[in-house]
Amino acid sequence: MKNQYTSDQFGRLKQSQRALETTSTQERNSMLYAIAEALKESKEIIQKANQQDIESAIKDKIGESLVKRLVLDEKKLDGSCEGIREVASLDDPIGIVKERRLLDDNLLLERIGVPIGVIGMIFESRPDALIQIISLALKSGNAIVLKGGREALNTNRTLVEIIKKALEPFSAKGSWIVHLESREEVKTLLEMDDVIDLLIPRGSNEFVRYVMDNTKIPVLGHADGLCALYVDNKADLDLALKVALDSKCQYPAVCNAIETLLVHKDVAKEFLPRYKKVLEPYNVIIHGDETTQSIINCVAATEEDWKSEYLDYELAIKVVDSMDEAIAHIATYGSGHTDCIITEDESKGKRFLREVDSADLFWNCSTRFADGFRFGLGAEVGISTQKIHARGPVGLNGLITDKWILKGNGQIVDSYESGKSKYKHQDLPLGGKSIAEQ
Amino acid sequence: MKNQYTSDQFGRLKQSQRALETTSTQERNSMLYAIAEALKESKEIIQKANQQDIESAIKDKIGESLVKRLVLDEKKLDGSCEGIREVASLDDPIGIVKERRLLDDNLLLERIGVPIGVIGMIFESRPDALIQIISLALKSGNAIVLKGGREALNTNRTLVEIIKKALEPFSAKGSWIVHLESREEVKTLLEMDDVIDLLIPRGSNEFVRYVMDNTKIPVLGHADGLCALYVDNKADLDLALKVALDSKCQYPAVCNAIETLLVHKDVAKEFLPRYKKVLEPYNVIIHGDETTQSIINCVAATEEDWKSEYLDYELAIKVVDSMDEAIAHIATYGSGHTDCIITEDESKGKRFLREVDSADLFWNCSTRFADGFRFGLGAEVGISTQKIHARGPVGLNGLITDKWILKGNGQIVDSYESGKSKYKHQDLPLGGKSIAEQ
Repeated sequence: MKNQYTSDQFGRLKQSQRALETTSTQERNSMLYAIAEALKESKEIIQKANQQDIESAIKDKIGESLVKRLVLDEKKLDGSCEGIREVASLDDPIGIVKERRLLDDNLLLERIGVPIGVIGMIFESRPDALIQIISLALKSGNAIVLKGGREALNTNRTLVEIIKKALEPFSAKGSWIVHLESREEVKTLLEMDDVIDLLIPRGSNEFVRYVMDNTKIPVLGHADGLCALYVDNKADLDLALKVALDSKCQYPAVCNAIETLLVHKDVAKEFLPRYKKVLEPYNVIIHGDETTQSIINCVAATEEDWKSEYLDYELAIKVVDSMDEAIAHIATYGSGHTDCIITEDESKGKRFLREVDSADLFWNCSTRFADGFRFGLGAEVGISTQKIHARGPVGLNGLITDKWILKGNGQIVDSYESGKSKYKHQDLPLGGKSIAEQ
Repeated sequence: MKNQYTSDQFGRLKQSQRALETTSTQERNSMLYAIAEALKESKEIIQKANQQDIESAIKDKIGESLVKRLVLDEKKLDGSCEGIREVASLDDPIGIVKERRLLDDNLLLERIGVPIGVIGMIFESRPDALIQIISLALKSGNAIVLKGGREALNTNRTLVEIIKKALEPFSAKGSWIVHLESREEVKTLLEMDDVIDLLIPRGSNEFVRYVMDNTKIPVLGHADGLCALYVDNKADLDLALKVALDSKCQYPAVCNAIETLLVHKDVAKEFLPRYKKVLEPYNVIIHGDETTQSIINCVAATEEDWKSEYLDYELAIKVVDSMDEAIAHIATYGSGHTDCIITEDESKGKRFLREVDSADLFWNCSTRFADGFRFGLGAEVGISTQKIHARGPVGLNGLITDKWILKGNGQIVDSYESGKSKYKHQDLPLGGKSIAEQ
């Protein structure tokens, strides 16, 4: 069951995408429910395939955390099916009117949401990511080319088979999903800039960076999540303690956990010993600068520590002279993902939000809130630190682009250039059907 | 006066950008007015420099249309100054709240507009493009690295000197503008993906494609503008005649003029002789398919004609059996820029707008309306046929990205994961100041 996709086959994929895009909102939602139902019914087959992958992974000694991500047990599968139903309940992003302007009498302009086209998704290990991205692609009318980790091949293959079978009764079927299985096909995928409109890589820093460096296709995502939390001299230290603990220890293996703590010199002597104490149950390894070392017992931090995304119970701490020094540190070493200030000073809080150039800037709350679901986006294709298209937690909106539609009754530009006619440029209320809708 | 920008100097550019971004709306508008005033006052110096470029261009025999684009006479300069004032009158895009959601009590999330950072602009010939892009960059708080055509070097250098001098009295000064002068520096520019956040190339197809193929920086723009107009069998032929004439002949050297006319077979015999007649004063060269050749006197079209962006008084015409054939032709040969249908049939008009995948889809009006100013965007950095970030005519919005800001009073994720707290996810009205504003 090896795929050998040729240029021509990718061309057919565009046609399948058009077929999916033109189905009704209701039809696409029914397809989502059918997938959730089928996955639930096939849970034994899925778990058998997943068990095979896990056994091979253990035999190949691929590491405990990778094995953990590989597991698709009943609880995770139930969660995935619940997620599919949540995606079905979201508003249809196709055809939404985002701008509406009367250029002149009977000359109506609209900017509407449309699918991007063909999304390429490359991810490591987690088979539940496959379910999530297929449901988001379906909802937004995009075709999808998937390449999962080698270690999850049996699980992914089984999931795709079940999903495609569940979509058989529908007019668009499952031909808008392509599952690549061999490593060579990733190279093909990265080169298909005439077919793939957007690539979303999910996985380790090295992996995402490899993708970014080896394709001309626009990439959405982030390589690093080097998040910092700054405790200001005007901070409420009880609040700071609680938020800094959650930001580091609630789940350290993820991109929105902090790797660096910056503390104002005026509160360092009081705050650091208290913080060290709350971290103790987690055995957090602390790398401190000289001042930190003079206050608490810790390892000496090197230049490398300010650049390290530990993704573990490990933290770099630096005592700073001012908020400006904290902002400068973040500008130099941060990855533009999520950074936080703890302060009761309104003007400093606002200045931090304005002056730090990251996708997410938080004030007096945990960095761990940086997430599509927690932000109320319903679901997430990933978190982007890119500057264009979509930034921060990206939901369905990241899979949607615009189309401008203009309906007239014979207007020509010459009338306006010659001065016979004049533009009205009158903005109209949004909402309601677009010009293109039946 | 040669620029030799090193990595470090580009680093300083980021600091200049931050200085510009943090100036007030009023300050940035005052800077715009100061530029307009200075350009007006220096018109003689500018025209002298421009005259030098024109003379060299004529001596170098660079072609009449290029010389035409190179000219910056009093009328064009007045138009440019008027354009600067229009940009000043637009709403400030920095800090606009695009999403506002209460995640829970006292936990307020906002998505706000912020500058992208450093924009690279590479353009050929037209020095008025330099004025336009500098004013849009200023308004949106972006630093800009400019590289104009060699043939406009004297004019561009003079313009940049005048503009920088006009900005001297302001706190942000003009250090956010970098003007590159040598061809080698373009190569450097394309490689600066750690500094430049977005590249906007404007010029010939070959030039834009070269830029797209030789950089890892995201590119906004279009290489080709191969626009088609389809005359349906249900078209009002008088209306079709008028619109098709404007779309081809009002200004054929631009990307939104049509290169291909598709005519339904049922109306071809009536429409084509009438159309040929209105085209006669313009000496339009017609390349027709076999059916077209049997109806009107024209040159035989080859496969190459369906792919040609003539940018001149030249047109490819094909008679089609159905709207489906017209849509398929556009899908095969079009460039996804602007395509138009002429029909009185509501359901076919709507279907065309939905099913053709181009940035702009028009119905019963000229393709020449595809333009930022005509769309009511105030100004235009270019027209993009890319699928991500911004599509179609791009105004200030293309130079803006998002930042998520979240203000709490000590909330941690553990409370929500453990079930102690529950998200409210309550959307709030937009408008008003953001959390970050003073």
